Amino acid sequence: MNVTPRQTRRAPGRQDWSTWPAYDSAAVGFPGWWYPVRWSSEVGRKPVAVEVCGEKVALVRDGGKVYALHDRCPHRGVPLSLGNRQFPGTLSCPYHGWTFDLLNGRLAAVITDGPESPICGKVAVRTYATAERLGMVWVYVPRADEPAPLIDSQLPEELVGTTFVLGGRMEPRAGNWRFAAENGYDEGHAKYLHRTSLWRLFKSMPVWNETHIERRDRWIYRVQDAQHWVADFPGLGPWSGHRWWKVNRPPKAGTTASNIGNTGGRSRVDPVIAAQEFPGFASIAMPGVLRIVYPRFIHYEFYVPVDTDNHRYVGVMVNFGGLGTAVGFWLKYLGAVRWLFHGDFSSQDAWMVDVTDAPPERLYRPDVSLTEWRRLCEDVTAERTSGLVEAPGRSGRVRPFGRFRRTQVHRVTS
Amino acid sequence: MNVTPRQTRRAPGRQDWSTWPAYDSAAVGFPGWWYPVRWSSEVGRKPVAVEVCGEKVALVRDGGKVYALHDRCPHRGVPLSLGNRQFPGTLSCPYHGWTFDLLNGRLAAVITDGPESPICGKVAVRTYATAERLGMVWVYVPRADEPAPLIDSQLPEELVGTTFVLGGRMEPRAGNWRFAAENGYDEGHAKYLHRTSLWRLFKSMPVWNETHIERRDRWIYRVQDAQHWVADFPGLGPWSGHRWWKVNRPPKAGTTASNIGNTGGRSRVDPVIAAQEFPGFASIAMPGVLRIVYPRFIHYEFYVPVDTDNHRYVGVMVNFGGLGTAVGFWLKYLGAVRWLFHGDFSSQDAWMVDVTDAPPERLYRPDVSLTEWRRLCEDVTAERTSGLVEAPGRSGRVRPFGRFRRTQVHRVTS
Amino acid sequence: MNVTPRQTRRAPGRQDWSTWPAYDSAAVGFPGWWYPVRWSSEVGRKPVAVEVCGEKVALVRDGGKVYALHDRCPHRGVPLSLGNRQFPGTLSCPYHGWTFDLLNGRLAAVITDGPESPICGKVAVRTYATAERLGMVWVYVPRADEPAPLIDSQLPEELVGTTFVLGGRMEPRAGNWRFAAENGYDEGHAKYLHRTSLWRLFKSMPVWNETHIERRDRWIYRVQDAQHWVADFPGLGPWSGHRWWKVNRPPKAGTTASNIGNTGGRSRVDPVIAAQEFPGFASIAMPGVLRIVYPRFIHYEFYVPVDTDNHRYVGVMVNFGGLGTAVGFWLKYLGAVRWLFHGDFSSQDAWMVDVTDAPPERLYRPDVSLTEWRRLCEDVTAERTSGLVEAPGRSGRVRPFGRFRRTQVHRVTS
Repeated sequence: MNVTPRQTRRAPGRQDWSTWPAYDSAAVGFPGWWYPVRWSSEVGRKPVAVEVCGEKVALVRDGGKVYALHDRCPHRGVPLSLGNRQFPGTLSCPYHGWTFDLLNGRLAAVITDGPESPICGKVAVRTYATAERLGMVWVYVPRADEPAPLIDSQLPEELVGTTFVLGGRMEPRAGNWRFAAENGYDEGHAKYLHRTSLWRLFKSMPVWNETHIERRDRWIYRVQDAQHWVADFPGLGPWSGHRWWKVNRPPKAGTTASNIGNTGGRSRVDPVIAAQEFPGFASIAMPGVLRIVYPRFIHYEFYVPVDTDNHRYVGVMVNFGGLGTAVGFWLKYLGAVRWLFHGDFSSQDAWMVDVTDAPPERLYRPDVSLTEWRRLCEDVTAERTSGLVEAPGRSGRVRPFGRFRRTQVHRVTS
Repeated sequence: MNVTPRQTRRAPGRQDWSTWPAYDSAAVGFPGWWYPVRWSSEVGRKPVAVEVCGEKVALVRDGGKVYALHDRCPHRGVPLSLGNRQFPGTLSCPYHGWTFDLLNGRLAAVITDGPESPICGKVAVRTYATAERLGMVWVYVPRADEPAPLIDSQLPEELVGTTFVLGGRMEPRAGNWRFAAENGYDEGHAKYLHRTSLWRLFKSMPVWNETHIERRDRWIYRVQDAQHWVADFPGLGPWSGHRWWKVNRPPKAGTTASNIGNTGGRSRVDPVIAAQEFPGFASIAMPGVLRIVYPRFIHYEFYVPVDTDNHRYVGVMVNFGGLGTAVGFWLKYLGAVRWLFHGDFSSQDAWMVDVTDAPPERLYRPDVSLTEWRRLCEDVTAERTSGLVEAPGRSGRVRPFGRFRRTQVHRVTS
Repeated sequence: MNVTPRQTRRAPGRQDWSTWPAYDSAAVGFPGWWYPVRWSSEVGRKPVAVEVCGEKVALVRDGGKVYALHDRCPHRGVPLSLGNRQFPGTLSCPYHGWTFDLLNGRLAAVITDGPESPICGKVAVRTYATAERLGMVWVYVPRADEPAPLIDSQLPEELVGTTFVLGGRMEPRAGNWRFAAENGYDEGHAKYLHRTSLWRLFKSMPVWNETHIERRDRWIYRVQDAQHWVADFPGLGPWSGHRWWKVNRPPKAGTTASNIGNTGGRSRVDPVIAAQEFPGFASIAMPGVLRIVYPRFIHYEFYVPVDTDNHRYVGVMVNFGGLGTAVGFWLKYLGAVRWLFHGDFSSQDAWMVDVTDAPPERLYRPDVSLTEWRRLCEDVTAERTSGLVEAPGRSGRVRPFGRFRRTQVHRVTS
């Protein structure tokens, strides 16, 4: 049976991703970064199979430390994660007892070939650098064979050297990691898609905003210039996300929009957060780290590439301060945030990420957040390729970036 | 691992569909026709996703009328059928509130980009003409951008301008639509496959028939020339579908086979049906409409292409006459026809359509009904392509077509 | 979305199967052999669909004998196994009653085309030779159109002309048939993978063995030269499969390893088995027949190719002798062997066969059993292609074959 393809009519304008070639090629993620892959509590002496950036990895804990091996025995292709520990510091394949050194992946013994097996030392499996941060196991996916950089140089700066408690969710989700990252940083959808979420049940949301994007170091920030709480659409009529039961009302006209927190800036700001002087409450960095700053805590999302069609969602809420503030935070997290924000609200995002199907695509003004994110990936990748290493701290530079205002040229042609 | 294909021995003779190139290419159906896709009662204010001829379509009812849009938001590829109505006469994408005019598909507003969004009016989604007939929603799948013809010109003629009641079933079924259409019009299988159906429990069926095919206007008719109720197969023995409990016995020898109804022609014929002067009780027309004429009602089947491997089966039993006859018809339909004919009997067809796997194929004499159906598709498609529009009514011409008689050359070489 | 493939680092040395081209091409098995496909009790008058060596076959029993037809009606591709018997010695397609002669596959009648159907005798489906042995139905998959050789010439020699009883399991399993055959004959895994099986719960297993391979007629035998019950791995420490509850202890040092049975050779050997003078207790022959010889019975495994990703496992335990010994054997089989050996033990093999993924592969010393098995397939295939037919009996020749000893060159470079 033959199929005659029917020609699809395309909207005018370029709709592919050729403007961002590195990004376009990164369907299974960018190598050269640390990625969180499991909660630390999930990795014990029994190996765990994970997939990150298309690589199959066996994680196992030995002597308190987590090791990561390429999850394929070179003998016959059996996953090493099905094996177990026969000697300290090693992992043995379940099939013939090929035994690999966890430190360097070298074949240390083959049980079924005796102590003088001539193949020992001639075979090795790839190993991956691992670390534990934020209660999670992280794996470094190398570009080639380079040593892993310090993980702290790739974490959000405010999470290094500070004291905090956190709560979070980690789960496999359908859809390419880039749709997840774009959804996370997307300016446009939040106010519309999430208006029906329980997290926003009593809080009004604007109809549309005016924003621009600024880059500082590894991050781009979305800076809010104006919020519009009602709008009258020509030929259609007025529209507002406000409902009578939303007691948390829009601010009065003339109030300046805050860039810390998205609740209006009336709360007292946590000193650690205040010290960061974030230009905007929503920021994103490679390789897919979203940071939403609230007055009293910060919400992070990590979009970890698995394969072309799947990613791992990691949502974390961080509360700075020691044990003194921990009890209150945990009560709030377990009592509300976990279910309303990391649950219901986030499941709306998961739904859209799953059904997004681009390119082709047709971008509009608020998508400046998407195009600047893609541009950031291009720029950072080019900087790294040319040997320039990003500064490991915050330099304080603020570089003007793509900007979306009614009164100026924006980068998204519509 | 390599696979060495083993050579399959082929029966002699051409077994592909190259004789019917348009038909061969129509794996997802013929554009340029109206197709029934849902019961009217299934399409309300909440959008419904359907697929017809490989096209994904969002159906939605607004102000009593059904509209059809291409089911993909051009922004990021999200199905519009997941959205809902934010303004009268429009459908909004759930993700960012892109709002499309139901009438013409134009982007009327983008809620999250404010009233002056510059992209409005620059983007549109394809719309499809819709109609409601026989209690169903119909969609016109265009060849290019041509306006839809009047649906009445494509309906069975006797269903236009007459009064009737109907009952039916509509369901997704596995298998290409062409296997379903060919099964429906297939002369050969009915007497053998369906001899065990409950619908035929008490009625004998012939072993084999002699028939020929006649074309009149858009339809080809199968005309019965002789029925054989028993047969003695050389070397094997006698065979008959008759069983002692089948009280509805074969007619006496010498009785002329009727071409209205397949029950022997003893019943009084409904005046609307009689007026049609159908040359044969089984007829088929593009784009896959089967008509089986009984003395008191007509059974129609529509084989609606979905994708290469699936179709939608629509079986409808029509009773001409007003409310006076409706009660009796409904009792008969709900009490028997729905379960025995549209259920059990039809499920035998669904079973065979699912497992049919052709080409290659090896046709035999009764397959003149298949080859003439394919030829009809070629001819009608050629007539339309050359600008000739089929007459919207019945012209009365009877053109001789392929004919299957023992005594003459038939078109199927065996 | 583009995917940039990441380069995988390969271990040095050839890792593909180009050394064994016939074997490499035999993903769906070798034609020219008899294969067991169902228990005889499973094939009755209702047809059964089976797949062997990628061929779809309809089995049906008529007049006590089993027939096999290619499972596709040439008319419209419907499986003949969905049909049934309308005349003795035939099978009719359920769709239109095309009726095929079970003996030769010829179209004997077409019920829906009457006694004089001109297509009769012009069409045939392929037939397959069948036989019943060991309580199973066997099908011969031909290379071209050659007649089937006598099945006895392809059965294990000791099963022809002797009296025995048997018990067994037959089940579909995931994984290519070659992984199953290699797993069955694999010297290395048994002692390690199966050390935790219930079958070996009370029996110690060696850590590693020294073996060599000998060929005699159609079979290659694994001959045990030395067994090592403990081993001290440099840098890692000692390892032994022995546990305190394993009451069946390793033999004393200096005891010669037996090549009949793998339990130490202390049992009285069955006279039929003793008469075979097997050079080793594990042997394999084309097209995938494993023979494990115990003192009192023989265990056979047949790895029947289905498609590239699936095979049929047939495990049979044979007890020589008449009814006198049958009761004791059956008690032992049903009480233990069936659950522990053909169940639990064998399921460990099924697990590994399912996850094996080669090539690429990296062989080690004990894999001489794999490479000699592949070489056997090459040699036997070449002998048959050149017109040399293997002797139908046992000639007594013992040809030295690949040999694995610490003190000599072995064929697996590591």
